[in-house]
Amino acid sequence: MTMIDNIFSQLPSPKVTSFGARSTAENEQFSDLLKRPGLHIERIVSTGQTSPPDFWYDQPTNEWVLLVQGEAKLRFADESEARNLKAGDYLEITAHRKHRVDWTPSGEITIWLAIHY
Amino acid sequence: MTMIDNIFSQLPSPKVTSFGARSTAENEQFSDLLKRPGLHIERIVSTGQTSPPDFWYDQPTNEWVLLVQGEAKLRFADESEARNLKAGDYLEITAHRKHRVDWTPSGEITIWLAIHY
Repeated sequence: MTMIDNIFSQLPSPKVTSFGARSTAENEQFSDLLKRPGLHIERIVSTGQTSPPDFWYDQPTNEWVLLVQGEAKLRFADESEARNLKAGDYLEITAHRKHRVDWTPSGEITIWLAIHY
Repeated sequence: MTMIDNIFSQLPSPKVTSFGARSTAENEQFSDLLKRPGLHIERIVSTGQTSPPDFWYDQPTNEWVLLVQGEAKLRFADESEARNLKAGDYLEITAHRKHRVDWTPSGEITIWLAIHY
């Protein structure tokens, strides 16, 4: 049996505030695509959210992330400026390297593929 | 240090034969994106190739594959017909499940993301 799904399926609606300002009202959407021993593949969909102020992801596992669609500013605590990511960009984020999402475009669907290992 | 690369970088030129027929003259392009213990992430770029006749991939590890761009017909030895894949489709191919690529479009760049674990 072959289960085929699509990474663009069941996307949330993009959310734009009345003045085009960034929306942070709703959360990012996390979907498990595969869970196996020592491996977790998930889709993360942003529709204009940023990480809360002073929040840093501090993850116990390594992560490889691919920006499938959209754009984002990814900030590392050990760097002074955010990295600008465009569609197709990928990078490794080692365990416990603190990072946050400084920006994703409001009213657009930004899709991340995250592989935790 | 943050190394950011892009999955659409350094793509081969698409190859079309004089009558628009499928090109099988050149090989698919395999690029390692990440190699870690128990995990291998690679990009595979097809430009119209198919697996050779009667060839089946028979891999010792499990694989999760995402069709990032393009389209393909993926055939499993235990199924009578090929699966039609479009951009964004993903599936798991368990170890030793024999499969082959029956078709990718000639003159187009088809990009696979394969995660071996």
